Amino acid sequence: MAEPLFGRLALIGIGLIGSSIAHAARQNGLVKEIVVQTRSQKTLDRARELGLGNAYTLDPAEAADGADLVIACVPVGASEQVAKAIGPVLKPGAIVSDVGSVKTSVVKQMGNYLPADVHFVPAHPIAGTEHSGPDAGFAELFQSRWCILTPPEGTDPKAVEKLAAFWRGIGANVEVMSAEHHDLVLAITSHIPHLIAYNIVGTAADMEESVRAEVIKFSASGFRDFTRIAASDPTMWRDIFLHNKDAVLEMLGRFTEDLTALQRAIRRGDGNTLFDLFTRTRAIRRGIVEMGQDTSEADFGRRHGTGTPAGE
Amino acid sequence: MAEPLFGRLALIGIGLIGSSIAHAARQNGLVKEIVVQTRSQKTLDRARELGLGNAYTLDPAEAADGADLVIACVPVGASEQVAKAIGPVLKPGAIVSDVGSVKTSVVKQMGNYLPADVHFVPAHPIAGTEHSGPDAGFAELFQSRWCILTPPEGTDPKAVEKLAAFWRGIGANVEVMSAEHHDLVLAITSHIPHLIAYNIVGTAADMEESVRAEVIKFSASGFRDFTRIAASDPTMWRDIFLHNKDAVLEMLGRFTEDLTALQRAIRRGDGNTLFDLFTRTRAIRRGIVEMGQDTSEADFGRRHGTGTPAGE
Ligand SMILES: NC(=O)c1ccc[n+]([C@@H]2O[C@H](COP(=O)([O-])OP(=O)(O)OC[C@H]3O[C@@H](n4cnc5c(N)ncnc54)[C@H](OP(=O)(O)O)[C@@H]3O)[C@@H](O)[C@H]2O)c1
Ligand SMILES: NC(=O)c1ccc[n+]([C@@H]2O[C@H](COP(=O)([O-])OP(=O)(O)OC[C@H]3O[C@@H](n4cnc5c(N)ncnc54)[C@H](OP(=O)(O)O)[C@@H]3O)[C@@H](O)[C@H]2O)c1
Repeated sequence: MAEPLFGRLALIGIGLIGSSIAHAARQNGLVKEIVVQTRSQKTLDRARELGLGNAYTLDPAEAADGADLVIACVPVGASEQVAKAIGPVLKPGAIVSDVGSVKTSVVKQMGNYLPADVHFVPAHPIAGTEHSGPDAGFAELFQSRWCILTPPEGTDPKAVEKLAAFWRGIGANVEVMSAEHHDLVLAITSHIPHLIAYNIVGTAADMEESVRAEVIKFSASGFRDFTRIAASDPTMWRDIFLHNKDAVLEMLGRFTEDLTALQRAIRRGDGNTLFDLFTRTRAIRRGIVEMGQDTSEADFGRRHGTGTPAGE
Repeated sequence: MAEPLFGRLALIGIGLIGSSIAHAARQNGLVKEIVVQTRSQKTLDRARELGLGNAYTLDPAEAADGADLVIACVPVGASEQVAKAIGPVLKPGAIVSDVGSVKTSVVKQMGNYLPADVHFVPAHPIAGTEHSGPDAGFAELFQSRWCILTPPEGTDPKAVEKLAAFWRGIGANVEVMSAEHHDLVLAITSHIPHLIAYNIVGTAADMEESVRAEVIKFSASGFRDFTRIAASDPTMWRDIFLHNKDAVLEMLGRFTEDLTALQRAIRRGDGNTLFDLFTRTRAIRRGIVEMGQDTSEADFGRRHGTGTPAGE
């Protein structure tokens, strides 16, 4: 096997994403050793039981000290305190990254606390499930999924390339774009769909008892997919909406305008407007199937499969 | 094998649902013979090539003449013309049913044209895919799925039970309720989720070209599930919204109110409101998993499975 890309990897946070990186980095021989940090003793003990790292600590500074690559795998809202804690001990030339689902806010939160002699390359792997914690991780999570890097202007291209090689090494396809563009695209592909799923499941939960029981019973009809999405981690998603506020509100505005137009068409019995939209949306689906992001096959009422990845 | 439940089954319409019934009824020996009717020569030829029936015709009256069970498997909006066509030729004691996704409107559309000496038992199998046409059908579609019967008051319980036995015979679990209740429950579990999926995919389709291409590329994040739902048949769904207008508008009103409250919470940075909702929605998911309508397993980024049943 070739020489590992990095000597010491520090994982700050060891939930679904952190533990998946640990499994994948080890399996692919990308790092010499892994130091695991997390906030709670309970999660730390569990990470140790699972054998996710070579060393374990509750102190982010201790974990980052001497590391060649530090990846923050915590909810987006905790990014600032991580940078504050690790900034003073970072080794010159180290690469600091994260996996947060929002990028502009993370750049703002972390940027100021990182010394000039480290390379800051934020990242977002577009891969997840609706489960969280160190038990949820697995090495194949990133296989053939995108990982988007959003290096601030002026970042050393060699550092960007090295982190890209790490992500490719654990199976991902890498794309580079600005943090702002990332946040806009993810608002429509991920954040608004999650908000809507949470919302409709909430609307159903508020129905009269007689209806609510049957909503659960007869859920196999569109709604069930929404409930899976709406079972995603509350802390992670609260932070996403608080930290991608502008892009989310902008996209939500467009969504609501369009929905109001549909509502009007239904009220007026305007079948043509409905038919036109329902036909137009098929083209987008075809694009996705053609790009190999999904299959067009039915799964015969889910006899074989076990579900759809959600969570993000 | 026991004596078939019915002698002659007439299927008026032979798309996804009609052809699945044909496969399933034959495989389970529930009928002696099947007469297939459809509107177009092309679909009729295809049904014949697939060997779906024992006889084939473009004329609904010819198909229904002498049938012991007639099932209309056409878009909801075509129900009235089917009843008009078959009413005069129906055999006394025959059972007439349908599979439409909306029930109050179908009862209104068909009821007046059916003679008093036949049994009218509307039905809705909650099972589907996003594909349509006679090639899309398969015998297992209804396996372990619900089929809801909505017999109008005064319907002969023996006829209801006989149709229930037919649906159980092809694998479904049968439930009886009023057409109005059905339409309300389905509005929230199926019709609104589809409307929202169509709407968000439409919103994305209207984005500037630079964003739109990336929406497709990075769709593996919630959005992709919506595109599958939004690839469902436009005619079927136009008819559903036009014919379940009242329940859909009622539920859409609740949905929009709730969404406006969420939007306000995001604008104000009110994390507690978001967190509370995101926690509450998990309970509904647990209910569904516990009732065996879905599994809680992740599918590891869909390496094994092929998708989620959508279509309805
Ligand atoms: N889940 C997904 O689908 C997905 C996909 C792509 C990106 N992401 C991003 O990945 C990041 C981590 O997500 P995850 O799913 O791995 O989360 P997770 O499974 O819930 O794990 C979170 C980790 O962060 C720690 N943590 C939580 N709150 C913290 C705080 N306030 N301060 C310091 N540490 C804290 C937790 O520590 P304790 O357990 O010790 O409390 C745990 O180690 C998030 O930024 C998320 O946006 C998630
Ligand atoms: N698809 C689902 O997921 C699903 C699930 C449960 C219930 N349903 C309900 O089942 C019914 C049929 O759906 P499907 O998916 O089987 O549809 P489909 O695959 O599109 O087949 C529709 C059938 O109806 C015929 N038809 C279409 N428009 C007609 C019209 N205006 N007049 C007379 N015949 C017409 C078609 O004939 P030609 O091909 O010859 O034109 C074809 O035989 C609908 O009421 C739907 O609400 C659907």
